[in-house]
Amino acid sequence: MRQSQLFTKTLKNISADEQSVNAKLLTRAGFIHKEMAGVYAYLPLGLRVIEKIKQIVREEMNAIGGQELLMTSLQRKELWAKTDRWDDKNVDVWFKSRLKTGADVGLAWSHEEPITDMMLNYISSYRDLPAYVYQFQTKLRNELRAKSGILRGKEFLMKDLYSYSLSAEAHEEFYKKAIDAYLRIFGGVGLGKDTFLTFASGGAFTQFSHEFQTLLDEGEDVIYLDRSKKIAINKEVLSDKALEQLDLKRKELEEVRASETGNIFNFGTAKSEQMGLYYIDEKGKKMPVVLGSYGIGITRVMGVIVEKFHDDKGIIWPESVAPFQVHLLELSPTPSPQSSPTRGEEVYRALRDEEIEVLYDDRDLTAGEKFADADLIGIPWRAVVSKKTGDRVEIKRRSESESKLVDLKELIKELS
Amino acid sequence: MRQSQLFTKTLKNISADEQSVNAKLLTRAGFIHKEMAGVYAYLPLGLRVIEKIKQIVREEMNAIGGQELLMTSLQRKELWAKTDRWDDKNVDVWFKSRLKTGADVGLAWSHEEPITDMMLNYISSYRDLPAYVYQFQTKLRNELRAKSGILRGKEFLMKDLYSYSLSAEAHEEFYKKAIDAYLRIFGGVGLGKDTFLTFASGGAFTQFSHEFQTLLDEGEDVIYLDRSKKIAINKEVLSDKALEQLDLKRKELEEVRASETGNIFNFGTAKSEQMGLYYIDEKGKKMPVVLGSYGIGITRVMGVIVEKFHDDKGIIWPESVAPFQVHLLELSPTPSPQSSPTRGEEVYRALRDEEIEVLYDDRDLTAGEKFADADLIGIPWRAVVSKKTGDRVEIKRRSESESKLVDLKELIKELS
Repeated sequence: MRQSQLFTKTLKNISADEQSVNAKLLTRAGFIHKEMAGVYAYLPLGLRVIEKIKQIVREEMNAIGGQELLMTSLQRKELWAKTDRWDDKNVDVWFKSRLKTGADVGLAWSHEEPITDMMLNYISSYRDLPAYVYQFQTKLRNELRAKSGILRGKEFLMKDLYSYSLSAEAHEEFYKKAIDAYLRIFGGVGLGKDTFLTFASGGAFTQFSHEFQTLLDEGEDVIYLDRSKKIAINKEVLSDKALEQLDLKRKELEEVRASETGNIFNFGTAKSEQMGLYYIDEKGKKMPVVLGSYGIGITRVMGVIVEKFHDDKGIIWPESVAPFQVHLLELSPTPSPQSSPTRGEEVYRALRDEEIEVLYDDRDLTAGEKFADADLIGIPWRAVVSKKTGDRVEIKRRSESESKLVDLKELIKELS
Repeated sequence: MRQSQLFTKTLKNISADEQSVNAKLLTRAGFIHKEMAGVYAYLPLGLRVIEKIKQIVREEMNAIGGQELLMTSLQRKELWAKTDRWDDKNVDVWFKSRLKTGADVGLAWSHEEPITDMMLNYISSYRDLPAYVYQFQTKLRNELRAKSGILRGKEFLMKDLYSYSLSAEAHEEFYKKAIDAYLRIFGGVGLGKDTFLTFASGGAFTQFSHEFQTLLDEGEDVIYLDRSKKIAINKEVLSDKALEQLDLKRKELEEVRASETGNIFNFGTAKSEQMGLYYIDEKGKKMPVVLGSYGIGITRVMGVIVEKFHDDKGIIWPESVAPFQVHLLELSPTPSPQSSPTRGEEVYRALRDEEIEVLYDDRDLTAGEKFADADLIGIPWRAVVSKKTGDRVEIKRRSESESKLVDLKELIKELS
């Protein structure tokens, strides 16, 4: 894409009430726009990152048998009343409104209830199980405080998968697959090294649920990490008993701050029993379905990536989620014979022909302005053409300071 | 995809309060699930259709310079108060709620105001114009009645593009491009023959706005169509004066029912003036930006397609938006030597190798049940393998009754 045609520009002055690094950098670089506290729009660059993250998640969810669907934002009161989660005393993040008929209606903050209710249409026999369904859906949560940019918002994008299994054993088997898929996802988006399976409080059916916590000084959570074993335990379940069960030793644990980027939860048969989701087993016996839920905060992951990968000049995107692979900067285009393309144009076309995603800075700005914008936006590779580079291209990784001169063929090879 | 793994099944009994053909067929076939009146979830088959329609729209929007972004559902009262569209007396479809702080918050039924407000950050000079931005966004509208399935809902998916232009002339030029893009889109999704540019009431700046009306007996609108000229006029603006201006003759017009699948609207500079969106022109003069909006109801288009393309057995999807290209039915799999694949498996793999989107009915059902499901789901091609077809495949278009026997090579050629 030509940067001259991108309607966003980098911003020098942004609202002083943005306190978080992720919101500051993403706003200045033109990835997001703040609609209100905790509510952000995703501009073209930002939407490209979101779609990259979604695609990494989608492929892993499909690989473990997930089927993508899209539930609704508007929610019926009676459905959530069945599990006692309509009342604001029990769920304090509801946005509620009213239909013209006067009936209460909720805005979805989660989807276990409506998906499970829908499954009543499709699950009645053991032959219908298992079923794994997921969606990418905007969640609305009426949070009192939302000061950490896109790490915690009133409106955010989440991937939520729900598993419906025949038995606790079948559930357990899928649950393990989901853990592996999650670890591959966090690896895929560049957070693998710093994301740890973390034991947190379970519900009626299990002692523990599992979180995926990414180490982050700005994170909301405190976890106790055994680096050698690559697992952690959440502050709320830290006890001698829990440590013994998990074969962890207190003196080997580091207290670290982290952000919860994913979580998986075993509902057992509790919700199915509340909502009437049973199946008839091979012997003709009526059995409740075992339910699990598996969340990843897509926009939170994007925010965590920015918190972790930036320097004082701007963002440093991991290649897998970057809005473009390469930022091509043309400095003071060489005057060329009438109607023949500039060197920048030539390189731009050559990269596009190779289906390399390129943002081409063809704007009439100084070299300094272009370099500063490139550092702020944070595309993994920068390629510069100028009088100085002649028929070669100067390339540099955003994460490194060394540059080198290559010819077009080498450039394409490096980026492919 | 293997149909044995698809969690949805065709349903025989659906709620008696579904009155529209689109909701009945889409629900029975497993494309949608009704959450409440006018609020539908999109199941795997339905989401595939939605994504196909979105991609056709996206490509045309990109081709005319559109940049995709994603605005928010939560909306600030003060923004809409500026244009006097917060008050329920002026906009009677708001869903409203409250933040924890007690402040009012709206759920987006449209996005002109927030997008225009955001543009204050990016438009200040003539150099920043034009800008064309669009999104695919869930709109929430508190409609009193919602009885026509996905043709009109309280929650629906819309593509909305907004154009910001330097002048009325520049606006007009883009507006014409948008009309052409819309006609290509309706052609692309299979509605070209029956969709007509229709003159409707304008606003303060133009006498007419433009709708795209698709002929449909179940449509909500009445339009007057000149088939030879391929344009129509909406009932609300039908007058002798309007007919004269449009060079139409009353006696040449047909009164027909139609559904509004798209609309484009010229706001002139009214909204920019209300919201303070000005630019400095080349002579240093402060000028208001000219705004246009361009909508297509994505889920409505899906509903209209079903209303138009079905028979008493089920849906007949146009190839461009079908969830799969071919429905492969294996009837009573031939017993094959241990561990060697059935004929159906072989054909399934061959089609997948060619990247042909195939739904493979590998379920243990009778031929009659499989044929009935295939007709209901409405994939454009049906391919049958059975003892009778031997090493060939019996193929048939959903829209035709004649079938023919082909070999695998011919099958792939026909579907590619």
